[in-house]
Order: sequence, then C-alpha cells, then structure tokens
Amino acid sequence: PTAWGRAARPSPSPLQPPGLPLAPCRSFSNNKIQVELDESSGIAMMKFKSPPVNSLSLEFLTEFSISLEKLENDRACRGVIITSAVPKIFSSGLDITEMCGKSVEHYAEFWRAVQELWLRLYGSSMVTVAAVNGSSPAGGCLVALSCDYRIMAENPKFSIGLNEAQLGIVAPFWFKDTFVNVVGHRTAERSLQLGCLHPAPEAHKLGLVDELVPEEKLMEKAAAVMAQWLALPDHARQLTKTMMRKAVLDRLVAHREEDIKNFITFVSKESIQKSLRMYMEMLKKRK
Amino acid sequence: PTAWGRAARPSPSPLQPPGLPLAPCRSFSNNKIQVELDESSGIAMMKFKSPPVNSLSLEFLTEFSISLEKLENDRACRGVIITSAVPKIFSSGLDITEMCGKSVEHYAEFWRAVQELWLRLYGSSMVTVAAVNGSSPAGGCLVALSCDYRIMAENPKFSIGLNEAQLGIVAPFWFKDTFVNVVGHRTAERSLQLGCLHPAPEAHKLGLVDELVPEEKLMEKAAAVMAQWLALPDHARQLTKTMMRKAVLDRLVAHREEDIKNFITFVSKESIQKSLRMYMEMLKKRK
Amino acid sequence: PTAWGRAARPSPSPLQPPGLPLAPCRSFSNNKIQVELDESSGIAMMKFKSPPVNSLSLEFLTEFSISLEKLENDRACRGVIITSAVPKIFSSGLDITEMCGKSVEHYAEFWRAVQELWLRLYGSSMVTVAAVNGSSPAGGCLVALSCDYRIMAENPKFSIGLNEAQLGIVAPFWFKDTFVNVVGHRTAERSLQLGCLHPAPEAHKLGLVDELVPEEKLMEKAAAVMAQWLALPDHARQLTKTMMRKAVLDRLVAHREEDIKNFITFVSKESIQKSLRMYMEMLKKRK
Repeated sequence: PTAWGRAARPSPSPLQPPGLPLAPCRSFSNNKIQVELDESSGIAMMKFKSPPVNSLSLEFLTEFSISLEKLENDRACRGVIITSAVPKIFSSGLDITEMCGKSVEHYAEFWRAVQELWLRLYGSSMVTVAAVNGSSPAGGCLVALSCDYRIMAENPKFSIGLNEAQLGIVAPFWFKDTFVNVVGHRTAERSLQLGCLHPAPEAHKLGLVDELVPEEKLMEKAAAVMAQWLALPDHARQLTKTMMRKAVLDRLVAHREEDIKNFITFVSKESIQKSLRMYMEMLKKRK
Repeated sequence: PTAWGRAARPSPSPLQPPGLPLAPCRSFSNNKIQVELDESSGIAMMKFKSPPVNSLSLEFLTEFSISLEKLENDRACRGVIITSAVPKIFSSGLDITEMCGKSVEHYAEFWRAVQELWLRLYGSSMVTVAAVNGSSPAGGCLVALSCDYRIMAENPKFSIGLNEAQLGIVAPFWFKDTFVNVVGHRTAERSLQLGCLHPAPEAHKLGLVDELVPEEKLMEKAAAVMAQWLALPDHARQLTKTMMRKAVLDRLVAHREEDIKNFITFVSKESIQKSLRMYMEMLKKRK
Repeated sequence: PTAWGRAARPSPSPLQPPGLPLAPCRSFSNNKIQVELDESSGIAMMKFKSPPVNSLSLEFLTEFSISLEKLENDRACRGVIITSAVPKIFSSGLDITEMCGKSVEHYAEFWRAVQELWLRLYGSSMVTVAAVNGSSPAGGCLVALSCDYRIMAENPKFSIGLNEAQLGIVAPFWFKDTFVNVVGHRTAERSLQLGCLHPAPEAHKLGLVDELVPEEKLMEKAAAVMAQWLALPDHARQLTKTMMRKAVLDRLVAHREEDIKNFITFVSKESIQKSLRMYMEMLKKRK
C-alpha cells in the first residue's frame, strides 16, 4: 500500500503497445546496482546488490556515479532512496583490494572514483534518503552521511561509523568535513580518533542517523520521508541544499589533485600496506 | 511585582513639576513599535504593535533600526526585551507586499533595511532577550535568533522557524549563518531544506529557543533572565559577544552590495513573483 | 588492581642494583607538578601539586610545558592522565598575581607561556585524559578542554567553566575556539557571555565533560578510558587528531605576537587592573 509497492512492479509491461507513453516505472540495472524509477512519483530506488558486502570497488563506484548521473539528468526523477539488496550489510566501504599491491596509476584512478562519487552524492540536487538496512562502516558510512536523511534499521547488531583509524588508516578531510556537518566537531573528533563503529541505537543518539525503525518498516518509512521532502518546491530546496554544502564541496574541488597525491603517498607506504594486508587476513579468517 | 510592573507605568508623570530630574521611565512610540526604557534598571521593553501580524515592512524595519540605535546610544540603557503587543504572533517575518510588483529601487531599499536591522540587532552591544509570545516564521524567527536569549510561550500552537523554502524562496546566507550558530549545521540543514515551522516544544528541543514558560509567566521570566545577564560587567560581556559574532557579521558587511543584487535578481524572476502572489492569495483566503 | 596501582608505586627502587635496566616506572617531579611514567603501559600520570589552588603561574606553566615536552619526546610514553594532588581543586586557572602591577615585559613572558602550554597540550600527539577531581575555572577549564577526554568527579560542588567575563576580562579567541570545538557555538556563546561556572552535572549535560564518575572511581575510570584510546594504532590516531585540531592551532600560531600585544594592552588598562585587584581582594576575604 506504499508508493514502493508500485515502484517494485515489473516494467515496462511487455503487453504495452508501441507508440503509447512509457509505463510509469523504468528500471536499469548494472552489475552491482539496481535502479528503478517510478515516474509517477519521481522517486528512484537504488539497491546495492554486490555480495557479499557491497564493497566500494572501482567498478561499483563507477556504476554508482553513472547511475546518479543518469537520475540527475532525468527530469522525471526528483528523489532517490538508497538501500542494500544484501542482507545485514548496507555497504562495507572502500574495497581494500583496490588499495593493496596495485600500481600508482590504479590508486589514482580508484581515488578519483571515490571523490567523484562523493561529489555527485553530497552535491546531488535530488532528495537523497539512505535506508540503512545493515552495517555501514567507513566508506559505507560516508555514503549514508552524504544523503539528506538517514533512516536505520533499529537492530543493535548493525553498526555504522568512520572506523578508518581501527585499520591504521586515516579518513580524508572531506570524510571528516561531511561527518562534522552531521554530528558536530566534538562527536566527530572522538569517534574518528577511536575509529568507532556505533551500534544503531548509539548512532541515533549521536545524530549520525536521523531515525531508527524496525527493519520491516524501513522502506515504508523511507517512502514517507521522501514524500515529506518532495512536498517542497525543488528549486528552493536545491538552492538551500547548495548553500549548506557548497563550502565543503568546494574544498575538495579546490584540492582534488593534491588529495589524490596524498592518498597515493599514504597507501604506498609499506607500513600501510602491511596494516591493510593484516586486516584482509583477519576478514578472511572471520568467514 | 516584577521590574516590568514598574516599567509599564505611564511616564513622565503629568504631575511632575518642571525642572526636576526625569522620571525613571521614558517611552517613545512610533507607528509600529512601542519602546519603554526603565532608567533605574537600564532595561528597555520593545513591543511590536503592527497588527494584524507585525510583518516586517520597510516602515517597520526602519522604525526597528532607529529604535535600536536610540537605545544603543542611550547610556542609561543596557538591555532590551523584544516582544509583541499583538496576540498570538511575534512577527510574521518580511512583508511580502514589499517584494511583489515593486521597482528594482524599492527592492534594493527594502533589502538594505533588512540587512541594516540584522546588523544592528545581531551586533548589538546591549543584552537582547526575545520574549516570543506567538508564532514567529521566517524573518520573525531571524529577529528571535539574533537576540542573546530566546524565551517562548509554551503553547504548542505557536511555531517558529525559517520556513522560506515553503514559499519557494531561499533564506539568504546570513539568515543561515545565524541559524547555524544557534542550532548547529545538521539541524539547520534539515530545517531550512524542509522550511520547517517548529511548534514551541520542538523548537525548544532543537535549541532554537532556550526556554519555554507558560504564556502568563513570559515577561516575568524575561526580566529574570535579563537581570542575570546584566549582572555581568558590560565591557567584558560585549567584547565576548563581539568575539562570538564578528565572523558572521563581517561576512555580510563584506558582501552587502552583492547580497542586495542577488536579492533583486531573485525576487525579480517571474517564477518567484508567481510563488509570492500565490502565497499572498493563500494568506488572504485563510482569513 | 588497576594499572594505576602499579604506576603509583615508588620508583626507581632504592634496592635496584646499578647497571640493570630501568624499572618500568620512572618519575620526575618539579616544584609544582609530579609526573610518573609507567613504561610497561606507556601511560604517564601528571599531578598538579601547587597548593592552595594549582594556579597557573609562570613557574607552573613553564614546568607544565617542559613536562609535556619530556613525555612527548619519550618513545616509552603514549598517553598522559592529568589530575590534581590538591583536594577539591583541579586548577584555579591563570595566576592573577602575574597580571597585576607587573611590567610589560613580564606580561609578555607570562602570556607567551600560556600560549606555549596550550599549543603543546591541544596539539599533543599523546592521548590526553583529564581526570577533573575538583573545580576548574577559567585557565583550569582550558587545560581540561584541551585534552582528548574529560572525566569529572560527580560532586555538584565542583564546577568548571570559562568564567573570565565574571572577572571583567575576556577569554582570548583560542580559548573560545577550543570551547566551541567541544560544546558548539551556541553553548559557548551563552556560557562565555555569562562567565558561567557549571556544576559537574550541568557541565556533563552540556558536553563540557564527557563523563561523571564518583570521585573514588575517577582514577580507575581514567585508566580504563586511556586503555581504550591506546588500543588504536598511534599513527592513525595522531593524524586524525591533527586533522581535527590543526585549523584552531594554526590560527594562534599565525597570530601569536598580535595576541601577546592584545593581552598586554588589555591587562595594562587601569580599569582592568582595578577589576583584577578587586577580585583578588574578594578571594583573600573568602579564605
């Protein structure tokens, strides 16, 4: 009975005669991400479907950016709900294999794709709602932080946070800026230094997510929140969003090449490579 | 039995013989705003009395700025309590008729008066306490946000917020800066994008107002808060206030002409004129 | 049974034969501050022992900076817990006698020492935990604010705050910046203008301190918090801390000489000298 009931139906119908107007629901699906746009409501549903943990590989990031760009340029689309099709995980963050034992050129390409995704998502003119239906560490947390609103399943086993410090690495300044804009300086300082992964209830208390709902109500709630945001005239809302986020977006744009160089220097250090390899070993053993 | 009992008595007494020192309470009243200064306490009471909704017309803004300037230059005055003499409304914000179908010159004059009022109020060396005894949307909210302390009547029918986005317009950057300084970046981002009008209890929870009291206790509480702030030595308090607010004040001063041009360009657009006319029609029908 | 049980034992043992490796606990004690470093844990305990109120005199500040520098340069030290050996007081803040009736040269030397201490403490690469076991006004509060984490004895008779305005003086911009980074702009604005000394429970509610514990549990809790922070790899934690604090540190570094001149001009005013003398008289009468 929700808007998403409609969005989920198959489309376009094979019975539709040629020449008639398009069915109200269009979908495009890549390898890693599935997108369905309900033209009647103007709302797109974007689902991460890259098991086991929706890690943000170069391929995933590229598909993510292209999908956002398509929706951004589609006048029928006004808002996008971002969620996961993989149980228990929203996104595990940047794919560590992209940062291990690769060439300098690869590191540069990968980091540019990370920047690109964030610039598109944090600066999107669409309403962006994260329906966080699983854990969301590091880069996964950044994706949620970059949306306009965050709803999380109230399962205390799901956690979220910029836990880079736990891995021996450092979140870049624009992860930090995005985080500070959401939770304030003090909470960000402590959480980043400790590399905290906050269980959903704690994340809510800190303001890292805006709302907790039972997992089965997550999509319904996301649709209701989206409807509330879409009730506003697009133009005024978009200009307001830009006013709030421009300073932080501009800062990366102004330092983009420098930021790529910093990443390459950092990730190329033997000590960092060792940390990352150890972390990957640990993840493998967990399975 | 409060200080305001005294301040409210008629003055100067017609029975007072000429040549004697002035009575402790002086008042000056313009068309739209009534001001009474209790010289014994150093506290002025400023009451908006421009029915039906204390809208911030060019005339109102000019009187407001002049009244503040008079008090600022009066060594007998150390603090001002700002409230409304109109039931149920503090101020409805900028007068939309000043923005509709007028000349470019008029828009410039109007916007300069809005800037002037904010620069005087946010930068006032006096202690400023807003006794918000009614609803306070948009520019009315800015007036409250620009004070040192906000007390609101705890009536949930009264709401407050920068709801410009609801009208299809955008709050200027210095409205936003003032708001962020009070409620932080995240609350401001969400509230501005949604054009929220927060009922008093919610406004209190967000930190938009500092305190809620029953309506009949509002003036008593405002006097008590003022006494607490006036217990501090003026000089140290003023320098501290300047230190906290200078960056945001300087930003408008540096971009004042540009901000006027932006306003004129924005408000001159046919789409914006249409939005404003529709909003005025809606307001008329409500009556 | 805590780490501090070990750290507190006398060292080096007088029975230790010469030539053997150093005992795991080294201590160095100056006139005003006692420091013990437990080499096995990498944690130093720094205790203010300058009765009656641990006021930050030029001598105290110099010892404090030198102690921090020693620990910073000692590879065996990873974290420092800062507390008081004087009952009921953490530190009363800057020593007013250093600001009264002295030469311009003395004021300059004193202020440079205040700056130096803050630059070292706020910028420390060690984990810094304040165990606030007594009242902590003004400069004492700054010391606590500059640490990574603040635990306070839950005694409501102990208060903490930047109460400079109460004395008729103004906290410098970098006190303010440090405060804003902890409690946010609005709380800082109000607290600084009113020169608030917040009782421990209120300080906790405002986020000025992170945690309250019964006084007898303070050291145990500080050790537990320190262990949690030291569980992170130093390098990532240090880079993260720098990222969070660099802007505010750089601001003082860029304006250091100007800030000293401002202090001298301000403190040399007869009106300020009078305020400070009156405050000192009041303190003497209290005893």
